[in-house]
Amino acid sequence: MSRSAGPGSNSPAGRPEQSAARVRKPAPPKPLAKDALRVVALGGIGEIGRNMTVYEFDGRLLIVDCGVLFPEDGQPGVDLILPDLRLVEDRIDDIDAVVITHGHEDHIGALPWLLRLRPDLPVLGARFSLALIAAKCREHRLTPTLQVVTEGERRKAGPFDLRFYAVNHSIPDALAVSIRTPAGTVLHTGDIKLDQLPLDGRLTDLGGFARLGDKGVDLFLVDSTNAEVPGFVAPEREIGPVMDSFIAKATQRVIVASFASHVHRVQQMLDSAYRHGRKVAFVGRSMVRNMQIAQELGLLTVPDGLVRSLDKVLELPPDQVMLVSTGSQGEPLSALSRMSRGEHRQVNLTAGDTVILASSMIPGNETSVFTIINELAKIGVTVVHQGVAKVHVSGHASAGELLYLYNAVKPRNVIPVHGEWRHLRAQAKLAIATGVPEDRVILAPNGTVVDLVRGRASVVGHVEVGMVYVDGNAVGDVGDNTLSDRLVLGEGGFISITVAIDSHTGRAIASPTISGRGFSDDPKALHAVVPLVEAELSRTEADGVTDPHRVAQAVRRVVGRWVGDTYRRRPMIVPTVLAV
Amino acid sequence: MSRSAGPGSNSPAGRPEQSAARVRKPAPPKPLAKDALRVVALGGIGEIGRNMTVYEFDGRLLIVDCGVLFPEDGQPGVDLILPDLRLVEDRIDDIDAVVITHGHEDHIGALPWLLRLRPDLPVLGARFSLALIAAKCREHRLTPTLQVVTEGERRKAGPFDLRFYAVNHSIPDALAVSIRTPAGTVLHTGDIKLDQLPLDGRLTDLGGFARLGDKGVDLFLVDSTNAEVPGFVAPEREIGPVMDSFIAKATQRVIVASFASHVHRVQQMLDSAYRHGRKVAFVGRSMVRNMQIAQELGLLTVPDGLVRSLDKVLELPPDQVMLVSTGSQGEPLSALSRMSRGEHRQVNLTAGDTVILASSMIPGNETSVFTIINELAKIGVTVVHQGVAKVHVSGHASAGELLYLYNAVKPRNVIPVHGEWRHLRAQAKLAIATGVPEDRVILAPNGTVVDLVRGRASVVGHVEVGMVYVDGNAVGDVGDNTLSDRLVLGEGGFISITVAIDSHTGRAIASPTISGRGFSDDPKALHAVVPLVEAELSRTEADGVTDPHRVAQAVRRVVGRWVGDTYRRRPMIVPTVLAV
Repeated sequence: MSRSAGPGSNSPAGRPEQSAARVRKPAPPKPLAKDALRVVALGGIGEIGRNMTVYEFDGRLLIVDCGVLFPEDGQPGVDLILPDLRLVEDRIDDIDAVVITHGHEDHIGALPWLLRLRPDLPVLGARFSLALIAAKCREHRLTPTLQVVTEGERRKAGPFDLRFYAVNHSIPDALAVSIRTPAGTVLHTGDIKLDQLPLDGRLTDLGGFARLGDKGVDLFLVDSTNAEVPGFVAPEREIGPVMDSFIAKATQRVIVASFASHVHRVQQMLDSAYRHGRKVAFVGRSMVRNMQIAQELGLLTVPDGLVRSLDKVLELPPDQVMLVSTGSQGEPLSALSRMSRGEHRQVNLTAGDTVILASSMIPGNETSVFTIINELAKIGVTVVHQGVAKVHVSGHASAGELLYLYNAVKPRNVIPVHGEWRHLRAQAKLAIATGVPEDRVILAPNGTVVDLVRGRASVVGHVEVGMVYVDGNAVGDVGDNTLSDRLVLGEGGFISITVAIDSHTGRAIASPTISGRGFSDDPKALHAVVPLVEAELSRTEADGVTDPHRVAQAVRRVVGRWVGDTYRRRPMIVPTVLAV
Repeated sequence: MSRSAGPGSNSPAGRPEQSAARVRKPAPPKPLAKDALRVVALGGIGEIGRNMTVYEFDGRLLIVDCGVLFPEDGQPGVDLILPDLRLVEDRIDDIDAVVITHGHEDHIGALPWLLRLRPDLPVLGARFSLALIAAKCREHRLTPTLQVVTEGERRKAGPFDLRFYAVNHSIPDALAVSIRTPAGTVLHTGDIKLDQLPLDGRLTDLGGFARLGDKGVDLFLVDSTNAEVPGFVAPEREIGPVMDSFIAKATQRVIVASFASHVHRVQQMLDSAYRHGRKVAFVGRSMVRNMQIAQELGLLTVPDGLVRSLDKVLELPPDQVMLVSTGSQGEPLSALSRMSRGEHRQVNLTAGDTVILASSMIPGNETSVFTIINELAKIGVTVVHQGVAKVHVSGHASAGELLYLYNAVKPRNVIPVHGEWRHLRAQAKLAIATGVPEDRVILAPNGTVVDLVRGRASVVGHVEVGMVYVDGNAVGDVGDNTLSDRLVLGEGGFISITVAIDSHTGRAIASPTISGRGFSDDPKALHAVVPLVEAELSRTEADGVTDPHRVAQAVRRVVGRWVGDTYRRRPMIVPTVLAV
């Protein structure tokens, strides 16, 4: 397998290895028994994001979800993280279908890279999920084979008997899927909560889960995001009146930000705008696109004339204006962020305007979100956010709701998914508390191979999975070395020392060129380095050293020691020695 | 004023200018009228940290607090941020006293740099605050002039009549101070909350504030940290039983982490340990040091034999062990962080141990705290944190408590302090709601000069204040250029191109040396650059270009364009051209 797939090359196939090749080759799992169902998560376990689970029976594969993970502080410059696709790449033609539980990025974001491996892969999902996938694929110049499914429906995909269940989440049309094979029945929830008063009346099908449970669920893969959180998530409909109370008070423009796929949250904003005689403009590419789709699918109800173009809405008096915007996570390029810095081409916020952040703060985004809030407060904008008013509820079941699920499903084996370790552990506790035997609750991080044989699930091996980084338009070439270098450079910058030596004598030609970037604003900071290096060079010359690498090592050593002693800093030391 | 104070030099005097010199010189404030009191905050307004306020009357100065600010994502590699001391530096002998409200780093951390300007400055504060200052100064080899004051006490410092008031906060011995001059009376709260059931019975002196208010408070500087948060902070004593319930359940070792100065939180841990027959070891330098001090001052009650050395405690059976540790903010070098990674020399955590994080998550620290929590969960340690149980309460008054303060103090003018813009705005709203005229609520960011004349406070000018960065052992040499370079390098690394040209002909000598750091793990990633640069060099040679700078520009341009087109990335391009 090529390790040199060049940047910009269009085949993603070769790439994932590059970043994962550093991982030691694991023992291959034992071959799959005829009567066994195999489950391998390529992402989503031990992390929140890039959810992707591979099921295998009788030589055939079924994939559930194919999402991306967003990078953290330790992964600077990375745009996206993909699941490691090698496992399926080698068996791409054994895949009978890809089932998508819902349309969030952490469940659909990596599909384009999977589809490049085999563009005709059948992708099954609900209407809204598929509409979002179609839009995403257009951007990637892909035309996927999409097959709409709905709750209550059965489908056969190779040896896999699928049934879909309505699930309530923070996006419409979410589904859970049961997977029946001769080896047993799996229930895979996808993202789920149990809002008992959902705005669209579409309840999580607890009854369906219970009926399936009565027949027997051998393996339960369940959303762990809020397993740590006691109690129950408040109904989405409680957010509307809170937002409305601020919108009613507002005397000037109102900007409400939320996730661009949260149709029910946006519906409540529209209802409020209508009630208070405000016209609405959608701001932000994904918001405009998704709400267009939601309206076409009848998931969003928009009174005639309520929603207009931004230009049109901005012509109205401030107290008739509402903008529904993206940027709730503080993305620096988002419309909201530009508004907060006074850099938005059309919207110039002023004291007295109101901004409502009807959204959570995804861990890691707090600083950027608070930066926006402070910029807005500085202008004199009234800012309402989760920290001061109940303008957000989570889309994931808390512990109390999860107990309802266990008691309905009565699973024989459980694999906690969709969570970091703290969430998986909390999920395991809940499973055990409801009577699942401790040895049937399997914490199976990405790459763990779990086989279900005669009603019992157990770990049988591991496949190698790595982090596959997307940076710019290249995939997989950014790995641990690059990231650790970026971390060093980001903390301390670098000092470069360039010297030319006579290749025969090792004598320095002209005096060394020293430059630092990200080290100091003091123009004289590195003045002491030149004589230091010159002294070292005469030493190496005296020792008859002509090998540029050895000279470079000597220079690195002496400059590194100097900067440590003088500044107590650790910039990267970059010597370049030309032998001419 | 020297702009070249070398690194490591011991006089901080020259330094602050360096980082601030980039700021345009502001109009100096008009000279202070004879009957006026002047107030200038050098830090703490528009940010949480480096609190420092300078009061001036009749040519004399009084300073309240002198803290540090901790850096954010936008300030990579910075260790600390100091207040810009230039204003007082030029008038160091006019200072009559430095009053310290309490011993937190954001109120005392910058004292060593102030004391280097004048080591004999009288520093007034309560016993515990001064004990922490003394310890800090020892580390800086300073022996400050410390004067203990207590609540209820009056002091004269030059023209400033001081009176101290007991204040409840998340550290013992916190004080508010009233400052009386012929120009009027100021009440400066420092950090404050109104726990009505404080563990030490030391209530915030609301009665004293009310009596002062009856006499007339002309200017009120009040803690804004939680002004956004509705309601009241729960009593500290409610934390004890929650921690105790987990400690009671624990069958193995218990590690509790909190801020090293939170004596009352630690007292509740000790009580719980005692109740359940566990022995305690303090872990972490500041925890050991502060609890030693607290015990000596009678602020911490330790039953005989309860607290032992770590070695001794680790000899006991696990169910008799409790460690009280630092590291609650996820500091990667802290004992707790090392334990979570299995890298602690003495403590090897195992499944079934319990870790309680009895602390807040300071915004910006969430990722590192959750990293620790997940590492612990992976091991199988039971982790209890603020997100899942009530093991922390804030040390700052919420809106409800602040209303009590306004109604007691009845201030004529208000300056919200100790907060980011969102907090200052919320504070202003509360002041106005209680009857302070809107034009008497002054949002005065750092450097704003406010004069109090005949009972009315107003902005009269600004003094230049900059960010003064401490990185390693140098102060002020790291500025905006360095930080923006670090941000670029941290995101995309760099590509360096080194070429030697003939100084007469401009012809390249040997082929260019290309190297990238933080750019790609792919060894072939930059192979295309060599011919690219060679082609450019023959162009420049053909054009008769011999100026190394112009050659470097040409190389930067062509490589920059190539990397943008090929990778859609923006590494720093670092050409070095030697003319030999």
